[in-house]
Amino acid sequence: MSDTRGLLLSEISAPVPDSNDKVTIVGVGQVGMACAFTLLTQGISSDVVLVDVFEDKLKGEVMDLQHGSLFLRNPKIVGSTKYESTANSKICIITAGARQREGESRLNLVQRNTDIFKSIIPQLVKYSPNTILLVVSNPVDVLTYVAWKISGLPRNRVIGSGTNLDSSRFRFLLSQKLGIAPTSCHGYIIGEHGDSSVAVWSGVNVAGVRLHELNPKAGTENDNECWWKIHKQVIDSAYEIIKLKGYTSWAIGLSVGSIVRSILRNSEELHAVSVYVKGIHGIEEEVFLSLPAILGTNGLTRIVKQKLENEEIDKLKNSAQVISEVQKDIVL
Amino acid sequence: MSDTRGLLLSEISAPVPDSNDKVTIVGVGQVGMACAFTLLTQGISSDVVLVDVFEDKLKGEVMDLQHGSLFLRNPKIVGSTKYESTANSKICIITAGARQREGESRLNLVQRNTDIFKSIIPQLVKYSPNTILLVVSNPVDVLTYVAWKISGLPRNRVIGSGTNLDSSRFRFLLSQKLGIAPTSCHGYIIGEHGDSSVAVWSGVNVAGVRLHELNPKAGTENDNECWWKIHKQVIDSAYEIIKLKGYTSWAIGLSVGSIVRSILRNSEELHAVSVYVKGIHGIEEEVFLSLPAILGTNGLTRIVKQKLENEEIDKLKNSAQVISEVQKDIVL
Amino acid sequence: MSDTRGLLLSEISAPVPDSNDKVTIVGVGQVGMACAFTLLTQGISSDVVLVDVFEDKLKGEVMDLQHGSLFLRNPKIVGSTKYESTANSKICIITAGARQREGESRLNLVQRNTDIFKSIIPQLVKYSPNTILLVVSNPVDVLTYVAWKISGLPRNRVIGSGTNLDSSRFRFLLSQKLGIAPTSCHGYIIGEHGDSSVAVWSGVNVAGVRLHELNPKAGTENDNECWWKIHKQVIDSAYEIIKLKGYTSWAIGLSVGSIVRSILRNSEELHAVSVYVKGIHGIEEEVFLSLPAILGTNGLTRIVKQKLENEEIDKLKNSAQVISEVQKDIVL
Amino acid sequence: MSDTRGLLLSEISAPVPDSNDKVTIVGVGQVGMACAFTLLTQGISSDVVLVDVFEDKLKGEVMDLQHGSLFLRNPKIVGSTKYESTANSKICIITAGARQREGESRLNLVQRNTDIFKSIIPQLVKYSPNTILLVVSNPVDVLTYVAWKISGLPRNRVIGSGTNLDSSRFRFLLSQKLGIAPTSCHGYIIGEHGDSSVAVWSGVNVAGVRLHELNPKAGTENDNECWWKIHKQVIDSAYEIIKLKGYTSWAIGLSVGSIVRSILRNSEELHAVSVYVKGIHGIEEEVFLSLPAILGTNGLTRIVKQKLENEEIDKLKNSAQVISEVQKDIVL
Repeated sequence: MSDTRGLLLSEISAPVPDSNDKVTIVGVGQVGMACAFTLLTQGISSDVVLVDVFEDKLKGEVMDLQHGSLFLRNPKIVGSTKYESTANSKICIITAGARQREGESRLNLVQRNTDIFKSIIPQLVKYSPNTILLVVSNPVDVLTYVAWKISGLPRNRVIGSGTNLDSSRFRFLLSQKLGIAPTSCHGYIIGEHGDSSVAVWSGVNVAGVRLHELNPKAGTENDNECWWKIHKQVIDSAYEIIKLKGYTSWAIGLSVGSIVRSILRNSEELHAVSVYVKGIHGIEEEVFLSLPAILGTNGLTRIVKQKLENEEIDKLKNSAQVISEVQKDIVL
Repeated sequence: MSDTRGLLLSEISAPVPDSNDKVTIVGVGQVGMACAFTLLTQGISSDVVLVDVFEDKLKGEVMDLQHGSLFLRNPKIVGSTKYESTANSKICIITAGARQREGESRLNLVQRNTDIFKSIIPQLVKYSPNTILLVVSNPVDVLTYVAWKISGLPRNRVIGSGTNLDSSRFRFLLSQKLGIAPTSCHGYIIGEHGDSSVAVWSGVNVAGVRLHELNPKAGTENDNECWWKIHKQVIDSAYEIIKLKGYTSWAIGLSVGSIVRSILRNSEELHAVSVYVKGIHGIEEEVFLSLPAILGTNGLTRIVKQKLENEEIDKLKNSAQVISEVQKDIVL
Repeated sequence: MSDTRGLLLSEISAPVPDSNDKVTIVGVGQVGMACAFTLLTQGISSDVVLVDVFEDKLKGEVMDLQHGSLFLRNPKIVGSTKYESTANSKICIITAGARQREGESRLNLVQRNTDIFKSIIPQLVKYSPNTILLVVSNPVDVLTYVAWKISGLPRNRVIGSGTNLDSSRFRFLLSQKLGIAPTSCHGYIIGEHGDSSVAVWSGVNVAGVRLHELNPKAGTENDNECWWKIHKQVIDSAYEIIKLKGYTSWAIGLSVGSIVRSILRNSEELHAVSVYVKGIHGIEEEVFLSLPAILGTNGLTRIVKQKLENEEIDKLKNSAQVISEVQKDIVL
Repeated sequence: MSDTRGLLLSEISAPVPDSNDKVTIVGVGQVGMACAFTLLTQGISSDVVLVDVFEDKLKGEVMDLQHGSLFLRNPKIVGSTKYESTANSKICIITAGARQREGESRLNLVQRNTDIFKSIIPQLVKYSPNTILLVVSNPVDVLTYVAWKISGLPRNRVIGSGTNLDSSRFRFLLSQKLGIAPTSCHGYIIGEHGDSSVAVWSGVNVAGVRLHELNPKAGTENDNECWWKIHKQVIDSAYEIIKLKGYTSWAIGLSVGSIVRSILRNSEELHAVSVYVKGIHGIEEEVFLSLPAILGTNGLTRIVKQKLENEEIDKLKNSAQVISEVQKDIVL
């Protein structure tokens, strides 16, 4: 302790390094940083650890966040290329991963990311054996499975960010078409995060008024009002934003923030997140797909069994099979 | 589980009852409820337990808070006349206590409240052995000592709300006189919460410009601008508000909320709170008085040694002696 | 300006007294104060004016709030028995009103409150001709009509807090029975705020799964699971809390806060609030009843036309007739 | 209105497009977007307009933010290459500007940015004649002068983000050295934003205890504890972060957010921002430099006249002269 500090302060007890809401984020790319900034600005966590292999970038991001501490109610913000500093994290968010190369097969990409996960997951679990893993890297459903397998954690503690974002996009687009706030327009996108996601049109409603009561064809191709286009826009969103600005960041950061809040605050809110679905809706494979799920301190506590139409169930089953095919060739 | 619930939900893991930011409040009078409402509306805690001996009042308050859950991000709010439900609280706030009777001696009041504390503190510590006790009941400095003695907890984990509120009042009144926001007007009221509190005029400043640089007499009776009146108003505040509305509630609730946030979020912020001061500023008695103190997960970590003038130190010492006199006759 | 202030500050432009989110609250009883504390702690308004005829109580409440300014991001809090200080309020919340006397007829109570409103409403409209009136006093539906008639404001700018609170209670009770957060349990109570309110069971849903899909009898008396009891509990809530603690405050304060936020932030969210319903659901009377309504800067912009069952419509119509009967004898 | 929408909604009044807290941000680079994300996540504004000349990037950023609306309490987020949509903005934040080219003179850079400002400022003022301009582009002090000249607005309504960020960095670094939260470590960096900024060591304090009371040499080169290094780190911060991650974003976004909040909420808080300083501290030139200033609805209301040492005043005067030199050659 410096002389001045000694003259100023009288020590009574040693400060404790960690807080009750410690969160680790692996990967400080655009997605990881949007997650970190959301957690800090929305007061979701007061103790954020960033981990990455790129030391310069990591140090720059940490400094930049720390310089805003005054405006963030004094959180603790730490960066490290090592995992010791992640110890006792309540949640570990994984945003690290390789991007698809020109002409690369999907399996090849998955294998490369699996190899990256092998260097990350055991370290996270070693230092935070009671943590919840929240996988954001893509393809998120397969990689959540990979994280589950590598980690050895129970299935309630391995979750993928899944279609929480797709559902948010869906509700924003519904809100635009109806002139009502997104929080008042209800609907879920479930299944695989990406092209084969399923919009559960039967449940779309405003104040309990189902869209199908007003327009039974909504969501089908025969609908004059073309509500189906909204689902198409959801699917195209990531592609379009990537084309326009090079990557997606803000919405996925906010989506992840909402999931983290529900877990840290034990709020038992519903989120469409990627969970272990074997045995649900007749799915027979050991795969992770998004379904409305209740989240709390324990991670996943319950899954909502939506009333799906046959066609919707078929799509889910098909996604499960496709994903399972990819998974069986992964070298874990 | 009801049939409908069974049809709706597929259980994956049992929900966990407690959150990481669990806080118990003992006493659901105006002060206790203002504390509870502050913790919930400002998102400081998502898990609040209320304890009181008056079962009806307690149940009414809990129901009234629960009915607002929708607007509070789904906190857990529980009320109980028993202490089992307080288990594993990070902080226990004690607002219970008797009010002074007409013609009652101060010592008599303190003894009555000590007897009440004897029925509360051991129960709190039994169910939350690692908790931090935050005493709000008056006379707060003596009762913080009492709580410390009864609890057997280390001194960093027993804190009185002290002059955090007086300092807030002081800064509001400074702000009114200067036309600057209270958060930009700096100054501390320390010592005994109440009539003998000490305004540290030497440290009062705006943007680092000390009031004494501009007006060396500020705070003294010889000052034409009568800054001393502000301290007098602070002292008179509680009396005046009690005369006007019957009790004080909102500001003490907010003050307590700010202390709880610093502890739960481990933010190492400074608060003027009642702490064990033997050995500081030449105080020789085992008493609790308010000094600027750094708070974190561990409770009290450090005390700031302000440069006080002799007169200010004399006042502190005098308060310490008076309080010590009262304390020595308490039957613990 | 004092000398010290002159030495400290160099004036560039005069501060502006009002903010963009100014809100007036008439009545500083338990309900008015819970509204005020919600607006301030949740950062909904930074400029709150309290009005009441009881000068002492008013002054005490204002001082108590002001002393917490430091913890509230420096809002402006003003109290006055006169209406000049309410000028340019974006919203005026009316919580003032007489309580029912032993043996007093309902009409008599309404007339007494109408007389009180005659002393309030014209003053509010005089100083804030573009304001939105939000009536909270009971019986809220009749008094919203009274406020509308007295004020001469267009119907989009006169709103009653209505069943926004009943709906919140309903969703909390659903959440308790299902083990899911209230924000994830959807359902509306509409119609008259009070005994004759209507629970729209057909729209109750979780993740778009309607309760009626799982249990078609839910809400009826023939249901083994007794979901109807939840509606009964909602109706009994106010009575029970008043019996237990003497009044209701926190939940109504939070409910009003949510309405005010949607208006001030122009968020176009849905709230079940008391609005002019002539012409909707076949109602022929000039009455105000709660329906899901979209709120923004302009007050009420749209009403959601729920698909109600005949029985539900009959209840609404009956409420409309009863209320209309009361209204026709009011001396405005 | 679509058929379904017509069946669902009954229109009462037209929604109002703008909110009371509308803010325009010109420039959607890293800084502009960090500003936007801060305003939205911290609930500072519910109505954000983004303007840029790069239509693709702009559209991508707007979509990405909109898709997170659900998690942001339903703000209005709009992007446009034209200025019509900025009408009636309370504040216009300008982050647009060219970066220094290899070997480019400072004046040349300033002239290029002035030319850019000529295409922006008149448009902003045309559509929002009562707006406050908040300049963030660098060199911020010169460009704030340029914005003031071009706009024709009174000096209280043209502000540069200035050393609000430098002060935040300073306080974070103080906090690290002392083990106290940044919000409890007080100190100001004033003058030119950048290399010639002035750390006002005489005012640095914790709980009113001045660093100079404990260590009179603090801030000088003769100080064993090397406190001066903290100021050096502040100056080097931007360079270092740019070297490490390519740009700065988060802290400047948060800093701007804090300024915007004080203005929109009329909170009269102090911020070190770039203001017109002719006539203060003996400065004779028409330049903008950062001083502690009080901000409210009206923009700048008052400047705090700090007690500076001669050396500090000399540095300010020198900065004023250097800046004035640059300014006189600018073609406005």
